Amino acid sequence: MNIDRRKFVSHLGLLSTATLISANSLIGATRPKKTKLGIALVGLGYYSKDLLAPALLDTEYCYLAGIVTGTPAKAVEWKAKYNIPDKNIYNYDNFDQIANNPDIDVVYVVLPPSMHREYVVRAAKAGKHVFCEKPMAPTVADCEAMIKACKDNKVKLSIGYRCQHDPNIQAYMKATKEGKFGKVRMINSAAGYFDGRSNHWKQNKALGGGVMGDMGVYALQGARLATGEEPINVIAQASTFRPEIYKEVEETMMFQLEFPSGARAACQTSFGVNMNHLQIQYEKGWIRMEPQSGYSGNKGSMSDGTLINFPYLKKMQQPIQLDNDCKALLDGTDLLVPGEEGLRDIRVVEAIYKSVATGRMINL
Amino acid sequence: MNIDRRKFVSHLGLLSTATLISANSLIGATRPKKTKLGIALVGLGYYSKDLLAPALLDTEYCYLAGIVTGTPAKAVEWKAKYNIPDKNIYNYDNFDQIANNPDIDVVYVVLPPSMHREYVVRAAKAGKHVFCEKPMAPTVADCEAMIKACKDNKVKLSIGYRCQHDPNIQAYMKATKEGKFGKVRMINSAAGYFDGRSNHWKQNKALGGGVMGDMGVYALQGARLATGEEPINVIAQASTFRPEIYKEVEETMMFQLEFPSGARAACQTSFGVNMNHLQIQYEKGWIRMEPQSGYSGNKGSMSDGTLINFPYLKKMQQPIQLDNDCKALLDGTDLLVPGEEGLRDIRVVEAIYKSVATGRMINL
Repeated sequence: MNIDRRKFVSHLGLLSTATLISANSLIGATRPKKTKLGIALVGLGYYSKDLLAPALLDTEYCYLAGIVTGTPAKAVEWKAKYNIPDKNIYNYDNFDQIANNPDIDVVYVVLPPSMHREYVVRAAKAGKHVFCEKPMAPTVADCEAMIKACKDNKVKLSIGYRCQHDPNIQAYMKATKEGKFGKVRMINSAAGYFDGRSNHWKQNKALGGGVMGDMGVYALQGARLATGEEPINVIAQASTFRPEIYKEVEETMMFQLEFPSGARAACQTSFGVNMNHLQIQYEKGWIRMEPQSGYSGNKGSMSDGTLINFPYLKKMQQPIQLDNDCKALLDGTDLLVPGEEGLRDIRVVEAIYKSVATGRMINL
Repeated sequence: MNIDRRKFVSHLGLLSTATLISANSLIGATRPKKTKLGIALVGLGYYSKDLLAPALLDTEYCYLAGIVTGTPAKAVEWKAKYNIPDKNIYNYDNFDQIANNPDIDVVYVVLPPSMHREYVVRAAKAGKHVFCEKPMAPTVADCEAMIKACKDNKVKLSIGYRCQHDPNIQAYMKATKEGKFGKVRMINSAAGYFDGRSNHWKQNKALGGGVMGDMGVYALQGARLATGEEPINVIAQASTFRPEIYKEVEETMMFQLEFPSGARAACQTSFGVNMNHLQIQYEKGWIRMEPQSGYSGNKGSMSDGTLINFPYLKKMQQPIQLDNDCKALLDGTDLLVPGEEGLRDIRVVEAIYKSVATGRMINL
């Protein structure tokens, strides 16, 4: 860390004063504060290209400062489109040199899930805060290693869950917490879409594919956020409508959860079915959301007639998430969705696969 | 049967010509046709008192002709309220003499489920057509014995499923059959209500209690009617929110079904949760119903904007069901919901209990 900090300070003279006044998080409060953090996106697939990069044009507390890509053509394209200086463009071989680049405050890992651990750990070792897309990683062991690496290197880790930043999701979480309708009794949570691709990482086991990690965590989070509890057991059924495409991983997963309060959830996720809804049945009422985990437009209603339809201050969830997380880093406050939250889901995901393998309920 | 028929004919002179012109189903077409069938309700609990008896004031093809009760006070009350002649009032000891009563064309068994088999068989032996409330009986063996008894005695057997007679339920069945949105992929079907009682047959194992037979068959039927298929396997989880009340039977059941087409259903039923909804996700659209199995007011919508909101020609489902079934008996056509349909559900219900006992998926 000391070497990195020295190198960091030596670069200060080169930086744009418009975007970097100082680097308070690493250097301390005696210098003027940085007002926007520089983010480097690692992996320039669909989600970076169509969602995160546009979002970073709409953020107050961060901007797209750099990219990490293994495809030179993409580097050329992004450099032109987003005016990214050559010194902020990395490939997977020279990625670790990002440690010396004070433009980059946060590394956002948007790679296939099986690569999350490696790049989160490398980013942490480079002394950068890390945002990591969901699912956090294929295994609990991966997640724990990622959390430890960030802790050891004194950087923060946030998981790219958009939904917790959405005021509409926060509305039902609040209703549960306040006991507006009594205890939660029964939940149905579904999240899926028809994926027409056949050679994406989502169909590839080695890359961390399978619907459970991708869309399944939304169905799972619907239940976890609606109860505000962690499940105590799970039983699951995997299936596929298109075995010719889903040879290595499941296309569809149904799983059922029991929570400490006695609440039960039936969850459904699929790459073969368009669905996105959440029904929460309480002792004295209900809340329904549809969609429940869209990039925007999540909305719902409550049995007392309350509508859940908060407007988005930004058009999409991604700039809200990015701004919330970067403001927390700038202010030194807690992140809303730290690595531990990603781990909670993967703990259940791992149990779900174990249940499928054994045909049994798995205690958590 | 010959003796019964002779006795039947000997009673014809005593009958009201307004309600009984002849008894075509037993006597043949040479005599003028009966235009209304006489129904005897067996068991005068809530469902007979508050639903079926009022419904029988609103029917075209049948009327309340008699009652069978073990409670003399109820006999007095019903006799006065519905103008039932003494000769059409039976208790459980003299019930079999109903064979000699030509006023009674149909015996409707509205007793707790564990008594269904005995009274369906006795009614069949008395030469009467039989309507039997759902659940048909606690076991597949019971159902098969009931079907056989009716066949052996050449009487018809209908199960008291209201929903198949509801034009709103028929609307989604038709959409599936016609492939309006392609194949069914994923279903969520929930049916439950908060039951505040503690000493009803629904909490009593010996009487055939437990939520699965009572509300569970609605959740199950939602999935069966939506797919138009019979499930090939099931896995289930029983639970209770109120163990102090649900000591012998389950208060809540979640069960998951796989169908031959690959469609999957997650079903939920409970005596502790008010819920009644059905979501059908097809390849190219969806249908939602809420409520899905109310006595009236079932309605829904389709992804193409079609509303499912057929008006009820009668206020409730019960008079529609009674009239449809009695018209079929009068016309000599097939019953919409014969004993075989009740058996299909109980086959799944039995497997659900087996799954709970073993913790395993049960093939059907």
